[in-house]
Amino acid sequence: MHNPQLHSDGRLKHLLSIEGLPKRILNDILDTAESFVGVAEREVKKVPLLRGKTVCNIFFENSTRTRTTFEIAAKRLSADVLNLNVSTSSQSKGETILDTVNNLIAMHADMFVVRHNQSGAAHLIAQHVPDHISVINAGDGRHAHPTQGLLDVFTIRKYKPDMHNLRIAIVGDVLHSRVARSEIHALTTLGVPEVRVIAPKTLLPTNVEKLGVQVFHDMRAGLKDVDVVMMLRLQSERMTGAMLPSPQEYFKTYGLTHEKLQLAKPDAIVMHPGPMNRGVEIDSSVADGLQSVILPQVTYGIAVRMAVMAILAGGGQA
Amino acid sequence: MHNPQLHSDGRLKHLLSIEGLPKRILNDILDTAESFVGVAEREVKKVPLLRGKTVCNIFFENSTRTRTTFEIAAKRLSADVLNLNVSTSSQSKGETILDTVNNLIAMHADMFVVRHNQSGAAHLIAQHVPDHISVINAGDGRHAHPTQGLLDVFTIRKYKPDMHNLRIAIVGDVLHSRVARSEIHALTTLGVPEVRVIAPKTLLPTNVEKLGVQVFHDMRAGLKDVDVVMMLRLQSERMTGAMLPSPQEYFKTYGLTHEKLQLAKPDAIVMHPGPMNRGVEIDSSVADGLQSVILPQVTYGIAVRMAVMAILAGGGQA
Amino acid sequence: MHNPQLHSDGRLKHLLSIEGLPKRILNDILDTAESFVGVAEREVKKVPLLRGKTVCNIFFENSTRTRTTFEIAAKRLSADVLNLNVSTSSQSKGETILDTVNNLIAMHADMFVVRHNQSGAAHLIAQHVPDHISVINAGDGRHAHPTQGLLDVFTIRKYKPDMHNLRIAIVGDVLHSRVARSEIHALTTLGVPEVRVIAPKTLLPTNVEKLGVQVFHDMRAGLKDVDVVMMLRLQSERMTGAMLPSPQEYFKTYGLTHEKLQLAKPDAIVMHPGPMNRGVEIDSSVADGLQSVILPQVTYGIAVRMAVMAILAGGGQA
Repeated sequence: MHNPQLHSDGRLKHLLSIEGLPKRILNDILDTAESFVGVAEREVKKVPLLRGKTVCNIFFENSTRTRTTFEIAAKRLSADVLNLNVSTSSQSKGETILDTVNNLIAMHADMFVVRHNQSGAAHLIAQHVPDHISVINAGDGRHAHPTQGLLDVFTIRKYKPDMHNLRIAIVGDVLHSRVARSEIHALTTLGVPEVRVIAPKTLLPTNVEKLGVQVFHDMRAGLKDVDVVMMLRLQSERMTGAMLPSPQEYFKTYGLTHEKLQLAKPDAIVMHPGPMNRGVEIDSSVADGLQSVILPQVTYGIAVRMAVMAILAGGGQA
Repeated sequence: MHNPQLHSDGRLKHLLSIEGLPKRILNDILDTAESFVGVAEREVKKVPLLRGKTVCNIFFENSTRTRTTFEIAAKRLSADVLNLNVSTSSQSKGETILDTVNNLIAMHADMFVVRHNQSGAAHLIAQHVPDHISVINAGDGRHAHPTQGLLDVFTIRKYKPDMHNLRIAIVGDVLHSRVARSEIHALTTLGVPEVRVIAPKTLLPTNVEKLGVQVFHDMRAGLKDVDVVMMLRLQSERMTGAMLPSPQEYFKTYGLTHEKLQLAKPDAIVMHPGPMNRGVEIDSSVADGLQSVILPQVTYGIAVRMAVMAILAGGGQA
Repeated sequence: MHNPQLHSDGRLKHLLSIEGLPKRILNDILDTAESFVGVAEREVKKVPLLRGKTVCNIFFENSTRTRTTFEIAAKRLSADVLNLNVSTSSQSKGETILDTVNNLIAMHADMFVVRHNQSGAAHLIAQHVPDHISVINAGDGRHAHPTQGLLDVFTIRKYKPDMHNLRIAIVGDVLHSRVARSEIHALTTLGVPEVRVIAPKTLLPTNVEKLGVQVFHDMRAGLKDVDVVMMLRLQSERMTGAMLPSPQEYFKTYGLTHEKLQLAKPDAIVMHPGPMNRGVEIDSSVADGLQSVILPQVTYGIAVRMAVMAILAGGGQA
């Protein structure tokens, strides 16, 4: 079957989801990202790899936070960046997504960073654009958010380079998470032998075991001797329904506290994709504690996005 | 009478409407735009003509689509671009338009791209600014949208270079169109011998014949043997009133279908300023068909806007 | 006591409020700003002092006007500028201010320009950031707006260089003004011997005399023989309460008219921080009159903001 994310010669064409990316591509992105980590520490934080290129952040769903990371990455690559918040404009005039995209193609845009609240929007656009244009999925519904997954894997590799010897726990709302599924895939592809998910039944997809993970409903059992604790954000809009008791009760059972963290290995790292609900899925003292790598995740997120853009634009390291 | 769009030596000072522009200026803009078409196809899509200049997109009315075209054009000329959505800020603090403009002048802005829902707003600002500052009208009420008119003429000239031998039909809501009037003027100025308008009486201005056009109420008769079919957007907010029956009925009578298009010359081109109401004024198969030049219009729109900005900033080609 | 705005070697680290800045620093900013006045008049209005640096405008409270001045200043220094309107995004997801800031720090932002409707927000952020990052307060509640205060002082110095020989009147809503208090401090620090405040009792802070000013409730008496008339904006949201009668009545008593202005020295200058309520605190003929320096204030505001950014980034003149 043709892989829509790859050129016929095997190079990366779009980044739509981690599923379907061969190990070789994953490692190429991670290795290229290494070269961009240093750019952010230079006096002049810019490289000319995308000079004269037009990167369009098309956000059908507002997210200042995610848009900012892509905007910084593109500007540090010297691209011209256009931010389009489409929900409030053309869409309300009845223009279809593809008409909007067609117009930007006609304006000679080079790259689309797409955020949409419906699964498959980035795929739809990728199917549609001509060969010289690349699409990056910046989150589509509950489906995927691949640069988040990649930066998580990059962070793990930075702190725990021997991926073949890790035990990783993913904790929380796996059901609604855009990243959990991708992450599981990336981690197993890169050779991590043991991935656990820890969640109440109501927050797990059916047949989650088929992804190759071990399932725990008891957090204390699940955290035992892990090297990495990846907390997931609890969507506040889910908290009101029947799925969950109160945030306080959730915190009691699945919130990461210093006390629970002590069940993991002494040098375990703590991750969170942000934005955090302090006191709901994670205690502040853990979020800001010595084992937390939550802010390095953000730093590496810029390097990973620069790497993805540079590779899609034809390659080149920093 | 003094022409507010021209310097005393005859050079272009502001672009407010196509009416009042001599043929020489029209041709200068179109010829300059030719030189910018190629810039968008370069590896580095930038020329330094406006480097260190500040272009302010002052949008009193929101339009992501139009703002984007001017932002891309200005950035490809290396200008610094400021986007000001004024409706939500100073205006609500009771500051007048001219106070807003005065402040930007004091900040040494070089060029204003103005969009307003009231006719004459760009003229008002142009009358007010000092000599070294230029104003481009990006749409004021129902009055004018000259860069749209210019890109339409540019597109026609690209596909049908012998303007003295053309039959052009403008179809739809001429009454509320910002561009129809300007277009008619531009086309007759450039020597097009036959311009037709096709619309129901309720969507035509009174005495439209005085503009030098032939009026058709029957679309089939009006399309007969034309070289160019310019469709106009039907404003959805007009569709609810007493002026029109239903969108379905409008489509039946004035929507451009493949069948109706066959009445035009076999090599006729189809144009639309966008955003399209597919299935209302134009059938999707025609919009996306072989005769459609709707997306080239968008491409040429960038070149035309770059040309206008370059000329206003003192000239120079790509 | 440690001054949070200064490095241990006495250089400027943050600009949070004029209070606490030694005379030496004030003069350094004003002198550096002199060198940037000319940049705005060059053909290419750019200097490379902040090239490759990332300036984040974090606006927790919307203000297109203020954001624009900082965006222009940063772009003319060649910085990459990120505009973050935080109220509508992460904050609504429950992220704390400091989490938002931590994320931007992790993305290697270099400078924060902060606007917030609560006093102390910029201070809070400044306390929190690492040593190499600078914070500029762009207005926090009723507390401070130091670049406005600095540009006012800069403007006075341009028109009335002998600061040791001036009589200055500040007129209007001193109580709610972010700038009046800072201005009084700056003016006395720079040696202005006589500062007056003119306002009804309801618009004066208690014990305002302790700041070293003379208090007048009668505008005519207060304007007598002054060199500078600094009008303050009357917040329209205050006008509805019990504090004030109608805008018309306020104008009659405290509005600056041509007739009242004649009580000042013949060469007195008139200032206003904008946006003006014409016909409320100032008559249009005075705002646009020969003695008005309201637009030069805006021009100098860009130079002052460039100077502050350049100094915070490690110094250098234009």
